[in-house]
Amino acid sequence: MRKDSIKIGLLGLGTVGTGVVKVLKENGENIQKKVGVPVTIEKVLVRDINKKRKVELLPGKLTTNVDDILEDPTIDIVVEVMGGENPALSYIIKALHKGKQVVTANKELIAKHGKEIFEAADCTTSDILFEASVCGGIPIVRPLKRCLAGNKIESIMGIVNGTTNYILTKMTKEGAEFKDVLREAQEKGYAEADPSADIDGHDAIRKIVILASIAFNTRVSLDQVYFEGIRKIEQVDIQYAKELGYTVKLLAIARDDNNEIEVRVHPAFIPNTHPLAAVSDVYNAVFVKGNAVGETMFYGKGAGELPTASAVVGDIIDAARNLVHENKGRISCTCFENKKVKSPEEIVSKYYVRIQVLDQPGVLASLAAAFGNNQVSLKSVIQTRARGEKAEVVVITHDIKEKNILKSIQDLKNLAVVDEVSNVIRVEDI
Amino acid sequence: MRKDSIKIGLLGLGTVGTGVVKVLKENGENIQKKVGVPVTIEKVLVRDINKKRKVELLPGKLTTNVDDILEDPTIDIVVEVMGGENPALSYIIKALHKGKQVVTANKELIAKHGKEIFEAADCTTSDILFEASVCGGIPIVRPLKRCLAGNKIESIMGIVNGTTNYILTKMTKEGAEFKDVLREAQEKGYAEADPSADIDGHDAIRKIVILASIAFNTRVSLDQVYFEGIRKIEQVDIQYAKELGYTVKLLAIARDDNNEIEVRVHPAFIPNTHPLAAVSDVYNAVFVKGNAVGETMFYGKGAGELPTASAVVGDIIDAARNLVHENKGRISCTCFENKKVKSPEEIVSKYYVRIQVLDQPGVLASLAAAFGNNQVSLKSVIQTRARGEKAEVVVITHDIKEKNILKSIQDLKNLAVVDEVSNVIRVEDI
Repeated sequence: MRKDSIKIGLLGLGTVGTGVVKVLKENGENIQKKVGVPVTIEKVLVRDINKKRKVELLPGKLTTNVDDILEDPTIDIVVEVMGGENPALSYIIKALHKGKQVVTANKELIAKHGKEIFEAADCTTSDILFEASVCGGIPIVRPLKRCLAGNKIESIMGIVNGTTNYILTKMTKEGAEFKDVLREAQEKGYAEADPSADIDGHDAIRKIVILASIAFNTRVSLDQVYFEGIRKIEQVDIQYAKELGYTVKLLAIARDDNNEIEVRVHPAFIPNTHPLAAVSDVYNAVFVKGNAVGETMFYGKGAGELPTASAVVGDIIDAARNLVHENKGRISCTCFENKKVKSPEEIVSKYYVRIQVLDQPGVLASLAAAFGNNQVSLKSVIQTRARGEKAEVVVITHDIKEKNILKSIQDLKNLAVVDEVSNVIRVEDI
Repeated sequence: MRKDSIKIGLLGLGTVGTGVVKVLKENGENIQKKVGVPVTIEKVLVRDINKKRKVELLPGKLTTNVDDILEDPTIDIVVEVMGGENPALSYIIKALHKGKQVVTANKELIAKHGKEIFEAADCTTSDILFEASVCGGIPIVRPLKRCLAGNKIESIMGIVNGTTNYILTKMTKEGAEFKDVLREAQEKGYAEADPSADIDGHDAIRKIVILASIAFNTRVSLDQVYFEGIRKIEQVDIQYAKELGYTVKLLAIARDDNNEIEVRVHPAFIPNTHPLAAVSDVYNAVFVKGNAVGETMFYGKGAGELPTASAVVGDIIDAARNLVHENKGRISCTCFENKKVKSPEEIVSKYYVRIQVLDQPGVLASLAAAFGNNQVSLKSVIQTRARGEKAEVVVITHDIKEKNILKSIQDLKNLAVVDEVSNVIRVEDI
């Protein structure tokens, strides 16, 4: 029977939930014309009905009982914007088993429980849509799944976390140190009170794991991949990068190297001439290379109330159109391959290594030997900033496996002339 | 009955058609897993069966008779990559009336005959997909129609033509003049022997008319809009732009100004700090602003055999998936509004005006009066390059309607102290 309206059950009324309510209200007429029938919020699950809200909803819409949504046969689409793993996971699974469409912004769930969620969706041929789980409003999930579906994706490189990009941009533009910029970011609301999810790369690795799984048609799990955040970046590293023609970014990388997949997040030097180098402040960008399309980039606001709501509502419209035309669950999970995921130590990179040494003859020879003994060849060596007996040496290596660099670092630390290996940052000559 | 294969009829085997054959061959296995059944080219319409081709096709695949495709009930998707208006239009219409899915790369057809084409598609509830008609491989049509469907789109700004962007980039980086760079572009294959479609803005205006129609849900026609190419850009203009902090680009603009639509293509000064300013050479980029997503940009190769084929094959996969799931024609034309399209003379811009004058006292006062009498106020005035009796004056105006600038230019030309109005370029302080 043809639907004459689409009813939504919203799980959560925090930042993103509030954005969804606002967008559906502000653009409701236009959305109705696109879908063909009205799209309305029927119920909203909250923890506290009496809490003061930024948006007004009709009386009776709020509930603290999730079954008012999941057990209501008139609710067509469940929109999960509550975040966290549980109970969000069980709610989504139940909604799918009930044959409801599901839209989510939850990268945690998709990255960790994608298989279970897609299997639940298949049971009732329902849609599970998650554009908002990666880079907020920037279209990237649907373009990868659909527009670029004719490609073999070769690589994805992204600046996918706004907090760390804001901090690194500030450090680069103003010469400030990490701790000071982090504090300022927290004051301005660009970083959380506990910033570790962003700063230490947890947020970014979840996003790139989702993108890699789509791009390479292989389910990648979090325990297979390496990630590292920006806590160790010092102003002096940013200065060296500048001198050498690079910018420091927290880079999320996914690559198909002859059917072996690399997925990783870490700070990286990228050439100043690369489009990603110009992506600043809280903006995100994802650079995709396919064997037909070549290089393409998607850029925009990767977080925030309205940008994330834009992606959620785009998915709501898609799910709604599918219901109106009585066709859902068409594009299921596309993880039909089983490509090997490279262990991090096998991944090849160039490296920047900053070392504090004794300022005496023969030091460079010792350093070069420590690298050479581990098959690491050096592209450039800079010795600067001799202060009294100490000096600072910066090397850029040629391409080498991570395991070789790790051994080199160990050997360097054992040298009498080495005071400290201050930092090691990958160099991506993209 | 469930489909066990998808058969394509390809109209044309030029650059894009060749690309489509290559991509379907190279990525065929992966595409089959995504669609669920094999996707193969059944027949290809060509003008000359004996012409030497860059791709190999099985004997019997080529035909000079379009009805071998349009009248063949086993052919599911007609892919039109022959270009031109006729007979491509009649072929597409016939294919749709026969209930076949249609994928096209033809901006001419979609820009000029969208209404007729969509009505034909509606007759048989078939899909008409045209991602490749705008900016080659860059996903922009589907993101606008789907990912950003929750937004009211406020504006679209694009560098949508690779030939002109290549020329302007070269002029900017190398200080060369237009004619020399055009000749070099032709030698390298970046510009046609007859370059007017690109150079004079015809290509760009078709693309932005399509994007505007989608974005503002209003069918915009070519006769409603203003366009101008880059033939009048001189090196001196590029130098002034640099001095003033701008870059010269051929900009395609679509804006919703309180439900009145502006659509135009013309050279423009854009601030060096804007992401579009960094889009160089043959690359394209489309900058979209929506009331939820904020600013987002799509960047990549806007033309070329494989990038354009990437978009065509993405649409083929979409059409194929719809057939396999027995659901096509879900998203029809979305031109359900009837917004007014502003006449070009009502459009407000800032302007750069370069004028040759007699080098004598009172000249600037005369110029200022000519502008002032037409309500044009001046943001900055530069007088430079006095050579003997002549001098060059450059002004940047504040926002003003085009009709006022046109009158000002006329009045300037009538001044005795004015030798020539050398150039007028819009300034977009985006």
